[in-house]
Amino acid sequence: MEVTRRNYKDCLNTVYSAIEEADFLAIDGEFSGISDGPNVSALTNGLDTPEERYTKLKKHSMNFLLFQFGLCTFKYDQKKSKYIIKPFNFYIFPKPFSRTSPDKKFICQSSSIDFLASQGFDFNKVFCHGIPYLNQEEETQLREQTEERRNQLANGVGTPSYISPSASKGPAHVPDEHKDFINKVIEKVGALLNDSEKTLDLEPCTGFQRKLIYQTLNRMFPKGIHVETVETEKKERFIQVSKVDDEERKRREQQKLERQQEELNDAVGFSRVIHAISKSSKLVVGHNMLLDVMHSIHQFYCPLPEDLQDFKEVTMCVFPRLLDTKLMASTQPFKDLITNTSLAELEKQSKETPFKSPQVETAEGFPSYDTAQEQLHEAGYDAYITGLCFISMANYLGSFLTPPKSHIPARSKLIEPFFNKLFLMRIIDIPYLNITGPDLQPKRDHVLYVTFPKEWKTSDLYQLFSAFGNIHVSWIDDTSAFVSLSQTDQVQIAMNTSRYAESYKIQTYAEYVQGKQQEKEKLSQTVKSWGEDSWVKPHYSSSNTSVGFGYLRTRKRAISPAQGDLDTDKGWSHYSYPNSEGSKKIKTDEISAQADAVESKTSEGWLKMGGASDSAGSSPVPEDDDGGDGKNSPEGSSPAGHDVGTVAWQQASTGPIRKGQKTKKKKNQGESTTSLFEVPEVW
Amino acid sequence: MEVTRRNYKDCLNTVYSAIEEADFLAIDGEFSGISDGPNVSALTNGLDTPEERYTKLKKHSMNFLLFQFGLCTFKYDQKKSKYIIKPFNFYIFPKPFSRTSPDKKFICQSSSIDFLASQGFDFNKVFCHGIPYLNQEEETQLREQTEERRNQLANGVGTPSYISPSASKGPAHVPDEHKDFINKVIEKVGALLNDSEKTLDLEPCTGFQRKLIYQTLNRMFPKGIHVETVETEKKERFIQVSKVDDEERKRREQQKLERQQEELNDAVGFSRVIHAISKSSKLVVGHNMLLDVMHSIHQFYCPLPEDLQDFKEVTMCVFPRLLDTKLMASTQPFKDLITNTSLAELEKQSKETPFKSPQVETAEGFPSYDTAQEQLHEAGYDAYITGLCFISMANYLGSFLTPPKSHIPARSKLIEPFFNKLFLMRIIDIPYLNITGPDLQPKRDHVLYVTFPKEWKTSDLYQLFSAFGNIHVSWIDDTSAFVSLSQTDQVQIAMNTSRYAESYKIQTYAEYVQGKQQEKEKLSQTVKSWGEDSWVKPHYSSSNTSVGFGYLRTRKRAISPAQGDLDTDKGWSHYSYPNSEGSKKIKTDEISAQADAVESKTSEGWLKMGGASDSAGSSPVPEDDDGGDGKNSPEGSSPAGHDVGTVAWQQASTGPIRKGQKTKKKKNQGESTTSLFEVPEVW
Repeated sequence: MEVTRRNYKDCLNTVYSAIEEADFLAIDGEFSGISDGPNVSALTNGLDTPEERYTKLKKHSMNFLLFQFGLCTFKYDQKKSKYIIKPFNFYIFPKPFSRTSPDKKFICQSSSIDFLASQGFDFNKVFCHGIPYLNQEEETQLREQTEERRNQLANGVGTPSYISPSASKGPAHVPDEHKDFINKVIEKVGALLNDSEKTLDLEPCTGFQRKLIYQTLNRMFPKGIHVETVETEKKERFIQVSKVDDEERKRREQQKLERQQEELNDAVGFSRVIHAISKSSKLVVGHNMLLDVMHSIHQFYCPLPEDLQDFKEVTMCVFPRLLDTKLMASTQPFKDLITNTSLAELEKQSKETPFKSPQVETAEGFPSYDTAQEQLHEAGYDAYITGLCFISMANYLGSFLTPPKSHIPARSKLIEPFFNKLFLMRIIDIPYLNITGPDLQPKRDHVLYVTFPKEWKTSDLYQLFSAFGNIHVSWIDDTSAFVSLSQTDQVQIAMNTSRYAESYKIQTYAEYVQGKQQEKEKLSQTVKSWGEDSWVKPHYSSSNTSVGFGYLRTRKRAISPAQGDLDTDKGWSHYSYPNSEGSKKIKTDEISAQADAVESKTSEGWLKMGGASDSAGSSPVPEDDDGGDGKNSPEGSSPAGHDVGTVAWQQASTGPIRKGQKTKKKKNQGESTTSLFEVPEVW
Repeated sequence: MEVTRRNYKDCLNTVYSAIEEADFLAIDGEFSGISDGPNVSALTNGLDTPEERYTKLKKHSMNFLLFQFGLCTFKYDQKKSKYIIKPFNFYIFPKPFSRTSPDKKFICQSSSIDFLASQGFDFNKVFCHGIPYLNQEEETQLREQTEERRNQLANGVGTPSYISPSASKGPAHVPDEHKDFINKVIEKVGALLNDSEKTLDLEPCTGFQRKLIYQTLNRMFPKGIHVETVETEKKERFIQVSKVDDEERKRREQQKLERQQEELNDAVGFSRVIHAISKSSKLVVGHNMLLDVMHSIHQFYCPLPEDLQDFKEVTMCVFPRLLDTKLMASTQPFKDLITNTSLAELEKQSKETPFKSPQVETAEGFPSYDTAQEQLHEAGYDAYITGLCFISMANYLGSFLTPPKSHIPARSKLIEPFFNKLFLMRIIDIPYLNITGPDLQPKRDHVLYVTFPKEWKTSDLYQLFSAFGNIHVSWIDDTSAFVSLSQTDQVQIAMNTSRYAESYKIQTYAEYVQGKQQEKEKLSQTVKSWGEDSWVKPHYSSSNTSVGFGYLRTRKRAISPAQGDLDTDKGWSHYSYPNSEGSKKIKTDEISAQADAVESKTSEGWLKMGGASDSAGSSPVPEDDDGGDGKNSPEGSSPAGHDVGTVAWQQASTGPIRKGQKTKKKKNQGESTTSLFEVPEVW
């Protein structure tokens, strides 16, 4: 169902009840751009820490507009043994609703706009009929302003014009060239008072002239008339003068206030849908959804916090249960079955053996999507097929049970291991951002941090480390890069040989992290912490907000699942947390073996190395986007490719694991990594 | 004529010849926003110096996109005694044409987008079919890159992939999970070589997989095949493998280069039109055109220089003759005849007595506009009516000649006084930016610079200066403002009384300017000057650019009309330059008389003072826009109103002027300012 400003109010209850009755929700967003930084590869270094990645995305991706939001609700019908779906496709635009409401600016990235244009995206619908929104702070501020005006009127202070400093300054000065004009107006209004007409429409004039009219009429006709600016559809404004008695005048003021109140409610607009999703606490499924989540919070809830930990807490408060199908598909037992985890490909593969095409039915009154006729990159459609992928994969897990189950509901414990882990693109050794706990901390003791003159190219680094076999270069900026060696024991040798170097400098990864930490501490001693000051107070101290997310309550909740809780024998959770011996092991040989294939200074640089003849396509959409993940996302232009991230991520489990009989469907003979997906006999 | 990417190449010659044959050109631009600063009134302080205003506009207005450019050419047909017009409406969008071309970002301002949407602006046309463009530097860079590739091919070095550092690193490593996939590809290509098919289309895959395919095929089949990525309309990419012999392979490489060359030519796109306008040296007419000129140069020529003087020089080089109809209409003898200088109103008034509706005819093959059916804010239409206004006003000047002339051509000396003076919005005492000479330097010795705690409001300032009669407050920021007193001799008294003040501080305007100057000098001692380094060299050192504006030549030209030249007896030019005694006189009483009507902290603040009941309109378009000047321009939200600027600007002429008999058509009896427009008997 397409929802714009035109039918939004009528649809809202339909949306609410769809959310309320659903077993789970799938979402997707389309944005006006991805990265306002110099290039996407700089945005996604393969050795970013989760903190670094979050900071980069916050800095370089939040000034774009989320202008299409897809929501597809899935309700399981036991009798029919199928899901009943209700897909919504919301068009979103921050139309300022009054002079005092925020006039938002957003960035458009040509390549993203061009990409969406090529997919048939309707920009006119967004810009002409998009649903407005306010975040919590804006809503509170505007409600306070309206409240103030209401109080002033109630206390008989009158509208602000009567208490303005200029009011006491005597009659307004009318510049000579406007005197004729103003005199004519006075004449007309005088005539109005003496004839039978009720209203008088003055001809359109400049704002300055309107101001003079207001001042003059207020002074000359303090009673008996009501003056109002009326705007035509073409945004032309004229003044309307009406004959009114005192009571009528007050009534009109009251009406105006009520109109303003309603306008404000309308202005909260799409944010209500996010509020409803949040309050429902339903499982929210997305594909490669980190940016969707960040944008949704940033646009409809509050500006993103500085600190990753605070972001995790806000996220848990807005979306208490998340599941990322890209992360799910990249994890065992799916990892071996799915070679391409882009949304379009995943959707295709999840219909084929060993998966089963999920049984779904579009609810009455909703237009049904046809997966054969791909409508990729329409947010509603993408949300829909994301839900399909989730159902297929969830049901596949049921085949491991004894006896096997063909339908695995969204609340099944089988799915829990995938909760609140958001796929991290192109980080070599950290597959996901863990929203409800600490992140994985790979050792990276084979990684060197190298600084050098800005003239250096990748070939210079290969030259420098030629004695150490294959290396993997991850560019940070013009004058620094991470260099991963194939063998950890060569790190010391490399360090020693560089001791007397003048043009370049080598540090171990540990030294680099320590240096950054010290920098941060120095900074935080001078800058006030965000969490204490600018965020909690302005957003949450006021109780005027009609819809509260209950941040403080949730803060406790989000903090409570501490490390100790998670490290107990709760199924599979134990494998993914740091400081449990062995879990940080990285298959360094596998990473470094790719060294000569993976390099990331610029996408051009990468193309030169890997496939220079691959340049026939004149499209700016980055090389490895291939339709993308249902969104126009940074994944596209990775030099390292998201595949790298998942390839390299293989960790030894340490808990008491019993291997399920059918767990492993290995495609690659002879490889003996320990699978991440191990089915305990709990179910 | 509507011009998009689709018909652009076909139209180009039509555009060229229209420019070539024209007597003058009218232009107009539509932008994606106006100001990315906090609010427009902060952007346009009524006491800005031209330098300050330029710096603010450059900083806060250039990140928007000029996405519709209107050009209307006017050619006078002597026989028919009418102008033949050719209107063009260009849609413009920086579609990246290849991976290496710039991926431009631009800001959209919600209120501007909303405004254009309400006027029926077609965003889909812009984003789907907009004509691309490159500035000179981008064009040069891309031409150099193409040249380099051509040379490599000519020298037999081959495409860059063959000399990349990875090439010598032995066979590419194929990660295990892709081995099956790659082996299948090898099989298929092997089969291709042995069967009768000429080409093989592989199925779509990820960028990483394509990269592996390229590497593998280059290694395994160094001869006999050509590998190429093909993109479908839906931006899906797949690899096409073709059987070719060595010669064919080279031919294809050559073809590809030629295709790239053509693509690059296409990418220069709309900039060619600006080049043609520039080369023609024709008079270019616009309405309130400073932003149009700045954007045109910034987008299609070069990033705007830091310094105002440099900007003037570049402007003279790109648009050697400009005329601003808003400035013209605000100048005598038009000033007294036209109370509202917004484009729509000017167009209406310029058809009525004493003006004559200009005789125009749309050239064959061009759709004709109907001024009765306003299509305001379509750039082509706005350019058209701007031209009409110019003709009406120009012809009106002919009525002062003896004998009177009904047609005044664009090259008439009568019009020269209006050349290259661009209207400055809402500066109280400087009506225009003088592109070909020094700017007016009003004395401002009745102005105080006041700093105070950020809690202060306008009323506090009124309080503070209550002893000095009417004042005019121009807010600078939260803690400072200019306060204009009505009488210059009170400045010293105000200074004296403030001597022991602790919460606030008062400086004279002269002290303020001196302080700023010192700051600037301090800064320029550490920062390299822009003119020497970053601008001239990168933009002009290369001679590869096909279209040169000849900056260096023009630099001389622009510098040459020095003060001395202009101050000679060349008609009216002498009145508008500083340091000619008397020309700086400001009618201070008139300005200050408006004090209580004009205040400018925020538009809200202004509304409170002037017309609080004027808030029925729920549109965010600023109060005094009233249809605006044919563009969605900052003029809209002025607290001071452009009228103020023109009212206050009245200077005594100093040259040997003889008053024309019919020069003055005074509306306001009893006023005795000296008119700016004095017709010498030269003609």
